[in-house]
Amino acid sequence: MTPATNAPAFYEGKAKRLFRGSKGEILHEFKNSATAFNGQKKAEFDGKGELNSKMSAALFNYLRSKGIESHFVRWDSPNILVTRELRMIPAEIVVRNIVAGSLAKRLGLVEGAAIEPPIVEWFLKDDAKGDPQVSEDVLISLFDQKADLLKEMRTTALLVNRHLRELFTTVNLKLVDFKLEFGLDDQNKLTLGDEISPDTCRIWDSQSNEKYDKDRFRFDLGDLMTGYREIWARLVKVL
Amino acid sequence: MTPATNAPAFYEGKAKRLFRGSKGEILHEFKNSATAFNGQKKAEFDGKGELNSKMSAALFNYLRSKGIESHFVRWDSPNILVTRELRMIPAEIVVRNIVAGSLAKRLGLVEGAAIEPPIVEWFLKDDAKGDPQVSEDVLISLFDQKADLLKEMRTTALLVNRHLRELFTTVNLKLVDFKLEFGLDDQNKLTLGDEISPDTCRIWDSQSNEKYDKDRFRFDLGDLMTGYREIWARLVKVL
Repeated sequence: MTPATNAPAFYEGKAKRLFRGSKGEILHEFKNSATAFNGQKKAEFDGKGELNSKMSAALFNYLRSKGIESHFVRWDSPNILVTRELRMIPAEIVVRNIVAGSLAKRLGLVEGAAIEPPIVEWFLKDDAKGDPQVSEDVLISLFDQKADLLKEMRTTALLVNRHLRELFTTVNLKLVDFKLEFGLDDQNKLTLGDEISPDTCRIWDSQSNEKYDKDRFRFDLGDLMTGYREIWARLVKVL
Repeated sequence: MTPATNAPAFYEGKAKRLFRGSKGEILHEFKNSATAFNGQKKAEFDGKGELNSKMSAALFNYLRSKGIESHFVRWDSPNILVTRELRMIPAEIVVRNIVAGSLAKRLGLVEGAAIEPPIVEWFLKDDAKGDPQVSEDVLISLFDQKADLLKEMRTTALLVNRHLRELFTTVNLKLVDFKLEFGLDDQNKLTLGDEISPDTCRIWDSQSNEKYDKDRFRFDLGDLMTGYREIWARLVKVL
């Protein structure tokens, strides 16, 4: 459902369309599309946009209660996340607690091994280049980013990890890894942006290690929405 | 030429054979072989082993005069670097002053652009895995390395860079990038190891940007030894 605004989307990505609302707010319309492998695999899933927007809202709320500020303002039924506008930093930061995905592949490591302490990885936000992995050094010397800001992103991402892990553990879920994006608000304050959902997190059952996240779609591991709904059904009890 | 020792090589790599000498010394016999693309391209070049062993000896000597300690003990004619034994750290550290090679390719950057300040990149020393790029986080959490030690490697590598750049500039050469390896000596002191040669550095003419290093072999840019000899002829005047 398109939000109640007359202006067209000013940005359309793989999973969201963005509209300008009133009072400088941004309306993120979460789509039902899933894409993987840099857009090479695509499908539609009824209810995905709604679920991901609701879960993002709930998790941003939870993090705010822990003192971690984000762009989140409110959720609008059925699939709209209303946020403040940020000037986005062109890097994705990934936090990993357990070996999985590209890390396992790159380094020939066994999926499921614990990573202690949790690690951070950086990726350049650039679809045309396939979002390549980069170091903080590269972001500073070649992509104009400030060292202090990257350090703050890193610290905040690890703090988000601590709080989310704690939350997920109470409902028998393992937070394997997740991706965050940050931006600067109108006071130049580093602020958590984007979304937090099973599209951007790997989440496994604590006992069986069943995968409930987007890897179900990537690797045909079972119905996507069954996994997403399982996560939400558990989280909603404690959020 | 094989060193005067009765024992067989205890290690043979792509560019060197290692023998145990007396008093715990290690004899590095530099071979004439050049390999590229993880061993897929190979050739032999008369005089390469001699030149690389001489240049390594001279550069380790120069760095020692600047207070940077290495495994270097002495050079033995014609192609033997005699060193102390180190317990090697299983990571390569690359310092980059100018965009070239894998960095340009990975990030779609123009070769020749200045990198300011110079950056450091880490690679896991593991031929079977194709020496994948890693972060300091990965080395600490998944490959048992100590954070303090990596920090010291980084600081020392950047100091080596400062001194080598200064030296190369005086003979109209640009130090584009280079790879170092470190180990721990018998006092557990972090110590520079391996070699410093046109096999492990990218070195261009300051004016013409002509490449004098192993990229000549990788990309068929002209006779390899002509480039290597040009570097050595210039350096020998100031070393």
